[in-house]
Amino acid sequence: MTAIATQDEQGIRIEEALRLRFAERSTAAEAYGEPFAGLWRSAAAHATGGKLIRPRLLLDIHRALSPDSRRRDADTVVGIAAEIELLHYAFLLHDDVIDGDLYRRRRPNLIGTLAHDGGAADDDLHWARSSAILMGDLLLATAVLGFARARVSTSARMRLLDLIEHTIVETVAGEHIDVGLADGVIVPDLRTILAMSTYKTATYSFSLPLRAAAVLADASVEVEEDLSAIGRHLGLAFQLQDDLLCIFGDAEAHGKDPFSDLREGKETAIIAYARMTTAWSKVAPRFGSADLSADEGMHLRGLLRECGAEGFVQSLVLDELAAASEILTAAEETRTMSGDVVTCLRTLLARVEGRRS
Amino acid sequence: MTAIATQDEQGIRIEEALRLRFAERSTAAEAYGEPFAGLWRSAAAHATGGKLIRPRLLLDIHRALSPDSRRRDADTVVGIAAEIELLHYAFLLHDDVIDGDLYRRRRPNLIGTLAHDGGAADDDLHWARSSAILMGDLLLATAVLGFARARVSTSARMRLLDLIEHTIVETVAGEHIDVGLADGVIVPDLRTILAMSTYKTATYSFSLPLRAAAVLADASVEVEEDLSAIGRHLGLAFQLQDDLLCIFGDAEAHGKDPFSDLREGKETAIIAYARMTTAWSKVAPRFGSADLSADEGMHLRGLLRECGAEGFVQSLVLDELAAASEILTAAEETRTMSGDVVTCLRTLLARVEGRRS
Repeated sequence: MTAIATQDEQGIRIEEALRLRFAERSTAAEAYGEPFAGLWRSAAAHATGGKLIRPRLLLDIHRALSPDSRRRDADTVVGIAAEIELLHYAFLLHDDVIDGDLYRRRRPNLIGTLAHDGGAADDDLHWARSSAILMGDLLLATAVLGFARARVSTSARMRLLDLIEHTIVETVAGEHIDVGLADGVIVPDLRTILAMSTYKTATYSFSLPLRAAAVLADASVEVEEDLSAIGRHLGLAFQLQDDLLCIFGDAEAHGKDPFSDLREGKETAIIAYARMTTAWSKVAPRFGSADLSADEGMHLRGLLRECGAEGFVQSLVLDELAAASEILTAAEETRTMSGDVVTCLRTLLARVEGRRS
Repeated sequence: MTAIATQDEQGIRIEEALRLRFAERSTAAEAYGEPFAGLWRSAAAHATGGKLIRPRLLLDIHRALSPDSRRRDADTVVGIAAEIELLHYAFLLHDDVIDGDLYRRRRPNLIGTLAHDGGAADDDLHWARSSAILMGDLLLATAVLGFARARVSTSARMRLLDLIEHTIVETVAGEHIDVGLADGVIVPDLRTILAMSTYKTATYSFSLPLRAAAVLADASVEVEEDLSAIGRHLGLAFQLQDDLLCIFGDAEAHGKDPFSDLREGKETAIIAYARMTTAWSKVAPRFGSADLSADEGMHLRGLLRECGAEGFVQSLVLDELAAASEILTAAEETRTMSGDVVTCLRTLLARVEGRRS
């Protein structure tokens, strides 16, 4: 019961911090007229109410690393956690513009909502997409400024700034590769796809909150590096699971359109493996067809299973989880990390391992 | 001769700082593969070699405010000047994406260059535009991080962070209004257009470098506020001149396509005035026609002159210049600013007043 209560309390504190940020900015935005204030309110509605995976991860690890931290420091930690959520949403906004998406998890995203509110179709979509580019800019700047203003020591601030800079560069590099793959500018070999998944997902969704927790807990550079590596392994495992779930998983459970990756021709590790097998000649003709039927999707799924692509990517997931586990075992043996921290990370590892949606 | 030599030296120092930033980032980008490193190199080629109006403005005013500043501080000042140029380029990149522009001043912009390098047309344009969104994100973050890492006192750093935050919010708000005007979502009345021009141009191109100079010279908040107001007036005058030059000026001298504003249907103060006259019924049918001929452009130009729109906006320019001059006179009388600072600003004012391109 205690753990659940704490989880709830944590979520409430992060939500409060997020709502406060958006409320302040929506009010300040009124000086620039109703459309700009409205954009902030729409962004607030879309950016809040999520699962807060990244900020919760930061708070969990921080508590394990620094069980005796003071209340004043707790506000700083919640603040940085909120900035990470804003950074996440800034990335989502620009991703949706780049991918031309109007929906996320079957509901209209910010672009879909803004486009729907207006009149003439073309101008409306332009207005909605431009607004999303601009809101992404605002939230990206807000997140960096939040890191810059953190009430921490000078050395911790410098570490935080290096961390957010590295994170932004690597995430953007990953997105750039992803776009290059989709547009046929970059060759979709397995190595490139695994690197892209690590850069685009693992770095900011896993390594960033873990490393930020380390910096805020004044942990050693050694611990920060271990956490960074664990984040990369878990994040890559998570993304590979996502790819598997989208093709082989329960669409009801994961909430994405079934076979959307196949329909969009998304270059995943599954596809990179299949390309190297004789099954590819049978997959290729319908891969990336916007009008792929459910029957055809089932057929492609069968081919990708038979050629060994599913099993291969499942084994990659296990490899990544094992690599994360190894780092933990070594840190336990050398006492680089406390028992609390190792337990916390093992729980996280088990959660990634056991996910079904 | 001394002044010219110093001007050259100033330009060289800013160019060096910019080139160093891009060189470091291009090298670091190689870890993420050739396309990402190539994007940085292309951005460097497009972002350098300009007139450096904003960084030069900062350095000029800073020298006037703080004639005895040390060499070490000079590096910090040049650094902030370079960050302002990067911020300017980040805004240009996202503006070009939003406006669908492939050219700037008759030469291919970053998007035009990247799209041209590739193969199939649609994917290429998508790759080029997505790359421009992502590079804009990187440079926006770089500029904010540059402000955050400035080697200044804590209070100066907090002022710098507030300044760049205010600048980004206001510039983005201005761009948001501009898009709303173009897409017909926001009513193009004169007040809205003047506010938009101030937010979108004056704030970051004039007020930002002037205020940053004040903070770096440890000037009083009073001086910073005076400089901010002067920047707003000069920046608005500058933008209104731009609007006038595009329709009534010498196309060879200003380097833009003649009548491009009329062809694009750009909502300027000239048009807002014309809308309130009986001439509008004759302007409206061809305003915003992509296929506007030179003869038709000349005809519209005549109508806009006759209805008083040109004269009205010329008088607005004079009003803004007079308002800036009044602040200077008051600051001179109360000795809020030194003679050097007033002279420097009067030179700037005269330069804006006398511009023909």
